Amino acid sequence: MTAERQSVRTRLEQIEVLPGRPRENTAHMLARIHAARTDGIRLVVFPEMAVPGYLLGDEWERASFLNECVACGEALRAASDGLVVVFGNVALDPARRNEDGRVRKYNAAFVAQDGAFMGPAGSAYPFVIKALLPNYREFDDSRHFFDLRKLALEEGQSLDALIAPVPTRVGRLGCLICEDAWDADYALSPLDALAANGADLFLNISASPYTLNKNHKRNRVFADHAERLKRPLVYVNKVGVQNNGKTVFTFEGQSCVYDAHGHHTDCGAPFEAASLTIDLPLDPAVSFGEPLELQEDSIDELRLALEFGMRRFLEQCGATRVVVGASGGIDSAVAAALCARILPPDQLLLVNMPSRYNSETTRHLAVELAENLGCLYAEVPIEESVATTIAQIDGLVARSPDGSMARELKLTPFMLENVQARDRSSRILAAVASAFGGVFTCNANKSEATVGYTTLYGDLGGFMACLADLWKGEVYELSVHLNAISPSPVIPQGSIDVMPSAELSADQAVDEQKGDPLVYPYHDRLFASWVEWWNRATPEENLRWYADGVLEKQIGYEGSVADLFPDAAAFIADLERWWNLYQGMGIAKRIQAPPVLGVKRRVFGFDHRESQMGPRYTRAYEALKAELLGRDL
Amino acid sequence: MTAERQSVRTRLEQIEVLPGRPRENTAHMLARIHAARTDGIRLVVFPEMAVPGYLLGDEWERASFLNECVACGEALRAASDGLVVVFGNVALDPARRNEDGRVRKYNAAFVAQDGAFMGPAGSAYPFVIKALLPNYREFDDSRHFFDLRKLALEEGQSLDALIAPVPTRVGRLGCLICEDAWDADYALSPLDALAANGADLFLNISASPYTLNKNHKRNRVFADHAERLKRPLVYVNKVGVQNNGKTVFTFEGQSCVYDAHGHHTDCGAPFEAASLTIDLPLDPAVSFGEPLELQEDSIDELRLALEFGMRRFLEQCGATRVVVGASGGIDSAVAAALCARILPPDQLLLVNMPSRYNSETTRHLAVELAENLGCLYAEVPIEESVATTIAQIDGLVARSPDGSMARELKLTPFMLENVQARDRSSRILAAVASAFGGVFTCNANKSEATVGYTTLYGDLGGFMACLADLWKGEVYELSVHLNAISPSPVIPQGSIDVMPSAELSADQAVDEQKGDPLVYPYHDRLFASWVEWWNRATPEENLRWYADGVLEKQIGYEGSVADLFPDAAAFIADLERWWNLYQGMGIAKRIQAPPVLGVKRRVFGFDHRESQMGPRYTRAYEALKAELLGRDL
Repeated sequence: MTAERQSVRTRLEQIEVLPGRPRENTAHMLARIHAARTDGIRLVVFPEMAVPGYLLGDEWERASFLNECVACGEALRAASDGLVVVFGNVALDPARRNEDGRVRKYNAAFVAQDGAFMGPAGSAYPFVIKALLPNYREFDDSRHFFDLRKLALEEGQSLDALIAPVPTRVGRLGCLICEDAWDADYALSPLDALAANGADLFLNISASPYTLNKNHKRNRVFADHAERLKRPLVYVNKVGVQNNGKTVFTFEGQSCVYDAHGHHTDCGAPFEAASLTIDLPLDPAVSFGEPLELQEDSIDELRLALEFGMRRFLEQCGATRVVVGASGGIDSAVAAALCARILPPDQLLLVNMPSRYNSETTRHLAVELAENLGCLYAEVPIEESVATTIAQIDGLVARSPDGSMARELKLTPFMLENVQARDRSSRILAAVASAFGGVFTCNANKSEATVGYTTLYGDLGGFMACLADLWKGEVYELSVHLNAISPSPVIPQGSIDVMPSAELSADQAVDEQKGDPLVYPYHDRLFASWVEWWNRATPEENLRWYADGVLEKQIGYEGSVADLFPDAAAFIADLERWWNLYQGMGIAKRIQAPPVLGVKRRVFGFDHRESQMGPRYTRAYEALKAELLGRDL
Repeated sequence: MTAERQSVRTRLEQIEVLPGRPRENTAHMLARIHAARTDGIRLVVFPEMAVPGYLLGDEWERASFLNECVACGEALRAASDGLVVVFGNVALDPARRNEDGRVRKYNAAFVAQDGAFMGPAGSAYPFVIKALLPNYREFDDSRHFFDLRKLALEEGQSLDALIAPVPTRVGRLGCLICEDAWDADYALSPLDALAANGADLFLNISASPYTLNKNHKRNRVFADHAERLKRPLVYVNKVGVQNNGKTVFTFEGQSCVYDAHGHHTDCGAPFEAASLTIDLPLDPAVSFGEPLELQEDSIDELRLALEFGMRRFLEQCGATRVVVGASGGIDSAVAAALCARILPPDQLLLVNMPSRYNSETTRHLAVELAENLGCLYAEVPIEESVATTIAQIDGLVARSPDGSMARELKLTPFMLENVQARDRSSRILAAVASAFGGVFTCNANKSEATVGYTTLYGDLGGFMACLADLWKGEVYELSVHLNAISPSPVIPQGSIDVMPSAELSADQAVDEQKGDPLVYPYHDRLFASWVEWWNRATPEENLRWYADGVLEKQIGYEGSVADLFPDAAAFIADLERWWNLYQGMGIAKRIQAPPVLGVKRRVFGFDHRESQMGPRYTRAYEALKAELLGRDL
């Protein structure tokens, strides 16, 4: 036993997990187990929910699916001869019911050794149950599963008493299931309970979606815990793309091991399946050596997340060709440049759809983009069709069949802006995409999506909104980065420099420096305070900060609000204009928007749940507004 | 006290609650409290979450909103002089945190008497906490709130011990918050605990969305409980329309009182605000007299739910005019007929958009419909625009700017079907609706929505899908009912009799009895087994039933499957065709569909959560299929 405890040849299987496909995942895992045995591995660790996949909607309500998952787990158990195999799967407890009245289910870690499942010491269950299920952001795990904390409460025990390591021949495994370990909701960290109960090492199997700036924090916390508890910690995260319908998440892997000194090994490459083999020292005196520096999350990882998410989502949709409506502006240029990184040039088609309002400037930029990317290009003007629509509808008189009522329809210039946008997407791009045998992208960014500065069935159409979790400023940062990592620039400098504009009317003429009504450096930050902040701000807080002269500092705007708005009335008018849109038409449009590729916190859709209720203001806001405007409430 | 206990003059305030508008709701409640005092009422009862409203998305994360709700509750408390006022509101517990790390919140019933809040006997809280939060179907209450069961577990007490009546001058009020009382997850029904702890009467305040066939069940269960426990039960449900973004729910009211013999009073009218005054006998010996017969839920209530939901949702959207694309078929006819019941005729515009494939039959039916409804009508053909699209795209050669690659695009007949559908909705209806100053409807039914037999940005567009929770057969039933309750038929008999067809190609010519590829009486039932059944069926179960000769009985199909499919191969081909669409493109389309008006169980959207994963089949299905087809697996 002593020799074994010195070091355990361990393999971290950072596999790609296919959502909802237990048989495919299991076949892959069986092959990996076989390879591990051949390679003399003694402990092989797969991610959380490696058998069924994770974000599956209400798939958990189907008995046929659950039975298949259980059968797959049995196949993995049977394959564990001579090895210790740890994997995540759904576990059933047919004698008890979940809150939805269905058979009780757990998000579980299974430990198989020589053909048998090993449960935690003293547990009635032959598997480890996830301690605390997330029920926030995109997670609705408690809709389907029961967690250990509830079980402890139900049985009148403390959570700690139920947390015990699993005894195996390679040591007592302290299994965790994507436990953040920093969550203050634990009376005691499961890590501490496992350590107190004699764990030799920690295995944290995970299915944790990529989120910008998450990895650095995780590395720091895990390193601290390993060092404090003087035990190594193995972290195995899956790779893949899974969705909750409205939101698409990537899983980045980056599995690694922290030794008992808090030093960590190289991580599995982000967004790639990886098998990491390590002789895991159980003796706390043994270290990996010099600690690797903890890396800050980089924009390149964000770029990787976007590419990986688009590639896999395209595959899940069965699409191999993509059409991008290329306006010459920055958003479509970045979307096209990302597509060009994941598709052969003959499977990417840029379509420019000019009207009388499109400048030569942007039309040339669209061609330049296609040149840079070496992809297919076509120009399909909308003038003729828009003229048909105007001829058919402007001046059309609708009548009751008996002739007693009549009403003439008029198309205003604002309505014609939307007519153009819909003509481009629903008439041209949708038809071109089908004729090309592919799909078309939605290029909306998060700034536009927040306030619905976009047209339904127009530029809000598409198979996926790949940039809709990025503020406009972040799209610019990404464009600069994409150029920096390419042998020659892919995004035309002109697209970076041109005035952002929808070019749907003469009032949006880029060559006259007219364009979008948003001052992105300011509005991006204002909108983020509404959408992304944990402590969700509303106009009440915004106006208070403005009145106190601390708005810039609070929202992180580097300019001066006084330069944007001469007085309180102007500030308030702008604030209410955008809040009304965010809470009004913005929601209606988001409900019918394509799935958003999530890369940050509070992605529109399932991670940012909202109801159509119209914009509302609190009494405190109205009182402060009246005070600032010198009016009685 | 004896005289008071004999009878309490009680008012059930079945108010309409505006979601997310605590000040408006509170102003209305204050007026009703004032009226009650004037009328000599001693106990006035408002619905669950009467202050904030109910389905509010993540609004609960905004501190400014929560503070406003609390302030409103204080105003109601202050108004309770000389009365006992019961109302639902959110309650904060700032010293503790919810699972999401935010301040702990409860779905609470407040009992105010003479300006003070009265808590349950022995409780540390001056309010009643909901015992068990729903976390299924459209409900995600446990995302935001903490329930009494968890509190009991946390404090090491039994749930029953924390359930106690609230002592007031009108008696010991056994307050429940929308407790179904038949939920087996309770170790003991809260009603029993309240009775055991001395409740004189039960008050069940509710925010229960309308669901077909729910009321009859509720009436039976509540009557049984009241009789069994020999105490009256007051049920107050709100009226209103609230949404979770993707799904829109109506609340029907139907508040009523069950006496200690299980007899009930007349209910508040469905879908109307109502004040019901009753001298509530606390003496179990006193009865209301002869029991009213428990009514089966009727199709007319369903019709009311649809009308009420459409009317209020229109108001919430700020829309007063509606455009319906009228094809001459049944779905658009029913949608238009419902609109005609809630809008003046000059605010409803039917638009027929013929192409070469539309028969004279259906075009005349569209005109007949407009005649019947007396509304506005216009015809806007799509031929010219479709020709433009064909000319622009069919044969278009996309090239790389350097000329090294070229690809010619071809529009197939199938693609042209979708071109027509998109032309109608995104080009014409969207523009006509804006010029008319209104919105346009999506007329898709649940059968089409299930398998995506509909075009994205085409007939799947619209401000709301008002019929998308009804199977095709239910749409027909509704059409017959709408005619029956009108002085003269509103839906042309021809629209009821005509072959259901999209009329997008010569293969769908209604006059040749060609149309949709669905046999609705069969497929409606098959799809319901996948979508609506609590015990969600999949092809595995369907095929087992087919093999066992019990499919018709299991799914409730009145015909014979053998008449539809000559052999197992034909049955399986059809089964897989539709399952592939339901689990494939159907999901992609539903993600971008308009909000669905929910009237039954498992409405698409938030009540039927799904991920894009592609269609999958279990090993058990494949084995049975191989057996039936006489093939090796």
